[in-house]
Amino acid sequence: MTAYRRLEARFARLSAVQGALAVLHWDSAAMMPPGGAAARGEQIAALSVIAHELLTAAEMAELVAQAEAGKAALEPGQAANLAEMQRLWRHGTAVSPALVEALARQAHDTELAWRTARAANDFATLRPKLEALVGLVREVADAKAAAFGLSRYDALLDEYEPGGRAARIDVLFAELGAFLPGLTRDVLDRQGARPKPLVPQGPFAVDRQRALADRVLDTLGFERDHGRLDVSLHPFTGGVPDDVRITTRYSEEDFTRSLMGVIHETGHALYERGLPVLWRGQPAGQARGMALHESQSLLMEMQACRSDEFIAFLAPLVQEVFGRSGPAFDGDNLRRLYRRVQPGLIRVDADEITYPAHVLLRYGLERALIDGRLAVADLPEAWNAGMAERLGIRPADDRDGCLQDIHWPGGSFGYFPTYTLGALAAAQLFAAAKAADPAILPGIARGDFAPLLSWLRLNVHGLGATLTTDQILEQATGAPLGTAAFKAHLENRYLS
Amino acid sequence: MTAYRRLEARFARLSAVQGALAVLHWDSAAMMPPGGAAARGEQIAALSVIAHELLTAAEMAELVAQAEAGKAALEPGQAANLAEMQRLWRHGTAVSPALVEALARQAHDTELAWRTARAANDFATLRPKLEALVGLVREVADAKAAAFGLSRYDALLDEYEPGGRAARIDVLFAELGAFLPGLTRDVLDRQGARPKPLVPQGPFAVDRQRALADRVLDTLGFERDHGRLDVSLHPFTGGVPDDVRITTRYSEEDFTRSLMGVIHETGHALYERGLPVLWRGQPAGQARGMALHESQSLLMEMQACRSDEFIAFLAPLVQEVFGRSGPAFDGDNLRRLYRRVQPGLIRVDADEITYPAHVLLRYGLERALIDGRLAVADLPEAWNAGMAERLGIRPADDRDGCLQDIHWPGGSFGYFPTYTLGALAAAQLFAAAKAADPAILPGIARGDFAPLLSWLRLNVHGLGATLTTDQILEQATGAPLGTAAFKAHLENRYLS
Repeated sequence: MTAYRRLEARFARLSAVQGALAVLHWDSAAMMPPGGAAARGEQIAALSVIAHELLTAAEMAELVAQAEAGKAALEPGQAANLAEMQRLWRHGTAVSPALVEALARQAHDTELAWRTARAANDFATLRPKLEALVGLVREVADAKAAAFGLSRYDALLDEYEPGGRAARIDVLFAELGAFLPGLTRDVLDRQGARPKPLVPQGPFAVDRQRALADRVLDTLGFERDHGRLDVSLHPFTGGVPDDVRITTRYSEEDFTRSLMGVIHETGHALYERGLPVLWRGQPAGQARGMALHESQSLLMEMQACRSDEFIAFLAPLVQEVFGRSGPAFDGDNLRRLYRRVQPGLIRVDADEITYPAHVLLRYGLERALIDGRLAVADLPEAWNAGMAERLGIRPADDRDGCLQDIHWPGGSFGYFPTYTLGALAAAQLFAAAKAADPAILPGIARGDFAPLLSWLRLNVHGLGATLTTDQILEQATGAPLGTAAFKAHLENRYLS
Repeated sequence: MTAYRRLEARFARLSAVQGALAVLHWDSAAMMPPGGAAARGEQIAALSVIAHELLTAAEMAELVAQAEAGKAALEPGQAANLAEMQRLWRHGTAVSPALVEALARQAHDTELAWRTARAANDFATLRPKLEALVGLVREVADAKAAAFGLSRYDALLDEYEPGGRAARIDVLFAELGAFLPGLTRDVLDRQGARPKPLVPQGPFAVDRQRALADRVLDTLGFERDHGRLDVSLHPFTGGVPDDVRITTRYSEEDFTRSLMGVIHETGHALYERGLPVLWRGQPAGQARGMALHESQSLLMEMQACRSDEFIAFLAPLVQEVFGRSGPAFDGDNLRRLYRRVQPGLIRVDADEITYPAHVLLRYGLERALIDGRLAVADLPEAWNAGMAERLGIRPADDRDGCLQDIHWPGGSFGYFPTYTLGALAAAQLFAAAKAADPAILPGIARGDFAPLLSWLRLNVHGLGATLTTDQILEQATGAPLGTAAFKAHLENRYLS
């Protein structure tokens, strides 16, 4: 067996272990009783160490070198797979097994503590755990920075967005920082001159909301035989491509948030589900990165499903499922409701115009935490000051401030910017898709997402990680990632 | 670090991997969409191989030998733990990694095929998979028989019931075989002379059945913070001691079966939950064997919860939860319903008098399959003939015949006899418990299981695998496993 084939076998086993970890993480969030946490921590730590050992075993260096030497004989897809293997192997070997295990345990422990701390608005008890976690993440960043010749932050970012660099993000975010505050004022002025949309009054029974979600899942093309929808505190997409697990949370007072949340996660799920079957279990068969991943959720949530066409399709469905009607349930009202712009404290509730401000804040804070310019103890105040500066509102407590997100307590630093990179990519991809296939919008108007999904399968999902993010975007849209399509989209939707 | 301590660290990691496997198995049965099966098969196979590698790594032989040499310095609990480590290590090293992986894959594949085959009453399509599986199980039996100097069947039995031997089972089963047919005739005569119990007429909504199950779980002492109740085709207990997952299935026509099924699984769950905290993650902290495990489920289901005392407590609860009353819901009727004896085709629906006949049939057939005296192709006919001989009824199809159980398609051979060994142990333990603490029965009468649970924690659960099955029974009841208490229980309940 060639070195390349032996690497394939090894990565297939690694993929199976990571798939098991994905199930364990999903279960922790969606199913596990609280008393199972300690045992689950042991399971996740053990599998994380085993995965790291598989990736960094002594014979891997030799196999990688041999495969590299024999690269000329590989098919293009195999060469791309080998390049991804090398990237993952370099990430793996940059850190010690002891550090991987310590980080897995600390992240599990801190994430569980965050659940309680958030509910109790208690940053003080979370703080020592978060300090320990940030310490470990900085150790990882140091080790990877040294191994890759990158800055600490870029070394972390590269895990979530391969090839992503802060210098380039700074440029994109500066363009948004220059554009969005003025746009926000214009939109708020315009919005203020019109009557407010009506808020549909509940209660909306959870089982009816679930029924509505099921109808929408079917409409968007979520395959029930290959996935589930459940409930968790923090909605997410998990599982593996042939068994995608998405979650939501329901409030009886408001069906609109959960509904759009389900659509968002379905966008992620469709990406996972559409990854190339030929490369299942191999690095080339994984999603390209978190920016493209978020582009798929936002393409569904913001581009496709807040379009005039989809909301006109959705309104009668909402009326039917809840057995309600009247002005608050009209398509025109729902559309205005789903496009209401309002600076707010909570990222996941933000509209698409003010959302980037939440990301820019977190991006700045996490870079400062990783670079050592900000102490965990000073995070609440830095957060609140940043919110006041960027959005003109100051959280009354940490629950609505720095305790609102799971990312940092879960050990994810370098992840936040991908939300806004994803928003840019979503606008760019949706514009290209509509230009390429005039059947897409009329399809959405009748609840037929097949034309859109076909384009996405061909131009994004099915490529897996065989190309870089920029290659995928240039091939699909004719340009690398930029802000133009996003700006045009916002101006078109909110000011025209 | 001593060799013994290094073994402890190694077994802790093994336990975490096995815990992860337990979650994956539970998810497969209770949560996973059908399209996830292939990926799950890869995950389970990978973790099974990894677990086997952890157990049989080259350095283990040396560590086991060194720990054995230093045994004099160990505490008694540590010595018991070491003995269990050695037992597991011997089982692990008796088979090759390739065979372990092949068996895990084939069992997963065959079990999934069984689900379809059972629903479709289609033995023919299952047959080639089952033949391949039996072939692999026989390879395992050969390897272990050679390693341990046991017969093939005893070598398999030893995995489920450490120290269990067919020669001893033959004696116990012969005693039952001599006793039960006569008893069955007497009980059926007596039963036939009385009016039939009334069958409560449904429909019984699943959510009300679930509410009833929740009340009963709380009554029996199932800790919600450390477990879940869900739905699966074949009810089982899974998970880990701090996070025990039990399942049931509901029929709207009949609440009685699911209810008693939940009680049965709760007995298993209480055993797992009560295993010694001091030995979590170590071999000595595991359940002693499947005979004692089944004794705990049957002690709850057959001994405690079909007692006059419990059914008198249960009847008003049933009436309240379903909002029903009348003669069919009276305690007297429910008691007679729950003690109805009727030879039938389905093991899991059998009463406690005819149940052993189902086990004796399977025990004989699986020994013949493993010894090569019976071909898989001849199984349906051998099954049907055996049923006709033992219970006087012949299945009309394989769905109600040899396709009814998950065990063989799941790769478990040597498991079935533990059901009846468990029934014997349950009768013996319950009699001893009642004699030791007169507060137990009055407690059950008012829905207070604390006295019973205390006795079980002290005499069974909390001992884990630090003693043998016989040592546990002798210490708790004054005698090794026998048929006397079971016979006395049946005569007392059904003929007095």
